[in-house]
Amino acid sequence: MYSKLKAGLLVAGLVVAGLAQATDALPSWNEGDTKKSIIEFVTKTSDAASSSYIPESERIAVFDNDGTLWAEKPVYFQLYFALDQLKLMAPEHPEWKTKQPYADLLAGKIPKDLTEKDLVELVMTTHANMSSAEFRNKVQDWAATAKHPKTNQLFTDMVYQPMLELLTYLREHGYSTYIVSGGGVDFMRAWAPSVYGIPDEQIIGSRIELEYKVIDGKPQILRAPKLFFNNDKGGKPVGIQQVIGKQPIMAFGNSDGDQAMIQWTTSGTGPRFGLLVHHTDAKREWAYDKDSKVGHLDSALTMAHEQGWTIADMKNDWLTIFKWEATGQAAKE
Amino acid sequence: MYSKLKAGLLVAGLVVAGLAQATDALPSWNEGDTKKSIIEFVTKTSDAASSSYIPESERIAVFDNDGTLWAEKPVYFQLYFALDQLKLMAPEHPEWKTKQPYADLLAGKIPKDLTEKDLVELVMTTHANMSSAEFRNKVQDWAATAKHPKTNQLFTDMVYQPMLELLTYLREHGYSTYIVSGGGVDFMRAWAPSVYGIPDEQIIGSRIELEYKVIDGKPQILRAPKLFFNNDKGGKPVGIQQVIGKQPIMAFGNSDGDQAMIQWTTSGTGPRFGLLVHHTDAKREWAYDKDSKVGHLDSALTMAHEQGWTIADMKNDWLTIFKWEATGQAAKE
Repeated sequence: MYSKLKAGLLVAGLVVAGLAQATDALPSWNEGDTKKSIIEFVTKTSDAASSSYIPESERIAVFDNDGTLWAEKPVYFQLYFALDQLKLMAPEHPEWKTKQPYADLLAGKIPKDLTEKDLVELVMTTHANMSSAEFRNKVQDWAATAKHPKTNQLFTDMVYQPMLELLTYLREHGYSTYIVSGGGVDFMRAWAPSVYGIPDEQIIGSRIELEYKVIDGKPQILRAPKLFFNNDKGGKPVGIQQVIGKQPIMAFGNSDGDQAMIQWTTSGTGPRFGLLVHHTDAKREWAYDKDSKVGHLDSALTMAHEQGWTIADMKNDWLTIFKWEATGQAAKE
Repeated sequence: MYSKLKAGLLVAGLVVAGLAQATDALPSWNEGDTKKSIIEFVTKTSDAASSSYIPESERIAVFDNDGTLWAEKPVYFQLYFALDQLKLMAPEHPEWKTKQPYADLLAGKIPKDLTEKDLVELVMTTHANMSSAEFRNKVQDWAATAKHPKTNQLFTDMVYQPMLELLTYLREHGYSTYIVSGGGVDFMRAWAPSVYGIPDEQIIGSRIELEYKVIDGKPQILRAPKLFFNNDKGGKPVGIQQVIGKQPIMAFGNSDGDQAMIQWTTSGTGPRFGLLVHHTDAKREWAYDKDSKVGHLDSALTMAHEQGWTIADMKNDWLTIFKWEATGQAAKE
């Protein structure tokens, strides 16, 4: 019974896969070496008849989020959430009117000399001292309405259309698609499942301390104002080992913060795939790499060339950049 | 195309579910209230026509391991692994011959006054200062041959047959089955996927510090001799939030270490299910609860009665206890 069912599924799956290819699963990717390298890799690793075949349970693809799945300029979008929370909290904190960096931040200015310590304090002030459930609600409320200062689009529509297509394409070929981000895991879980089709349990990120407490008879998971794990740089392979316990097959990033993750992924035996998104389109998005603090890309680009990772040049490889553009096009057609 | 495929799957799934029920998916469970409560809960939460239906993405079941999925007497099996590693390491550590607790442990004696500090040192000595890959190999080598001192069965055959059937039954009804254990996550990952059918990424446990390092050009994940996260008691709901990000629907445990996990699970809105395995069979297994240090069960049993959690009484509810007995029976038939 089971094997029959399985065979039926396999056939149905292949038909679906065949149709998807015939109709171009990656329409926002320009025809060229980048697109070709992705399709060739996915095809050979998911084809049971191929010598490069990888069983489905091992087919893990990991994606950085900021600058890889959605934009990150002029600053990480999670910072806008923190600033918006600060404004909501301000009436209860009159002392912020004269205290820096709060006074500047509340006035809409991001001080140029904002230190790492300031940032951590800002995140702890706005992300902790509440339950996980309350935090999720706050982020969901924010994500439903908050808009990008330059494009005036919802932040959740500032996701890259080519990557949305890639996520779907990979899942259709039996890959599990994980987010592995320096951003906060519970921040992402509040909106990423509906935006990317990636469930909570496949989202890995930085974490603050959590504490289980029963308050007035009600069990709660409380968010304590202390960083527990920084899921960036060497923390990314560590986060992957903690949560997934397997070395991924494919890794996608855009900055030096992703270098260790792609290096770890591609160092495994058998077929492996690493890709860097290079922000090269100043007109349709932003162009930046080694001179940018946000999304700093320098040593990872050198390593990409040395190791033969694929580089997605946004200007040349992506026909459409943002989801909201794709939606706009569809509306016009 | 997709919706047709989905409909086909649904029908096939229902047929399979129907067949499974007709042939008794839980043959090692005695007919009675415990078995009935499990089947009723799983049936109503997985039946799309039921008012208690829960979407598959939310159907999360969490299981403690020691004393819930496999035995834990006379001491946690991971301790036997540590002792066997100690013996393998002894030739390189002549100083252990005269140093306690090493001398006793190497002589096969577990000192009655072994402190928590001794235990942590023992674990760090045998579980750290190597790569994740090396550690996995060591555990796998051990699991393939190490036998229980009383039954002379492989530790990996000291798993509970009724729980194996339950895991399969739950997965057939769209539940994701997670291990949430105080044991080491990478210790379990080395054998649990093949023994329970639970993949690495659905195993949550205690963790030591990991570090990403490139040594002689080879990327490695190294195990540092320092506890990073203790996945026990209140740590279990925290571990669940860290990794899964959702409140489970069903929780299974056997000791006070599982109380917070079951309390957290059953405190959610909508249908929830908590179950305690009560070790009541001194003849076929072990009988213990509040007077035992290993698998200590006291306040959780009180709470189970107060909150109406299901209690599986091993003596009365389980027709077969161990996998090796079931296999033995099958061999005889």
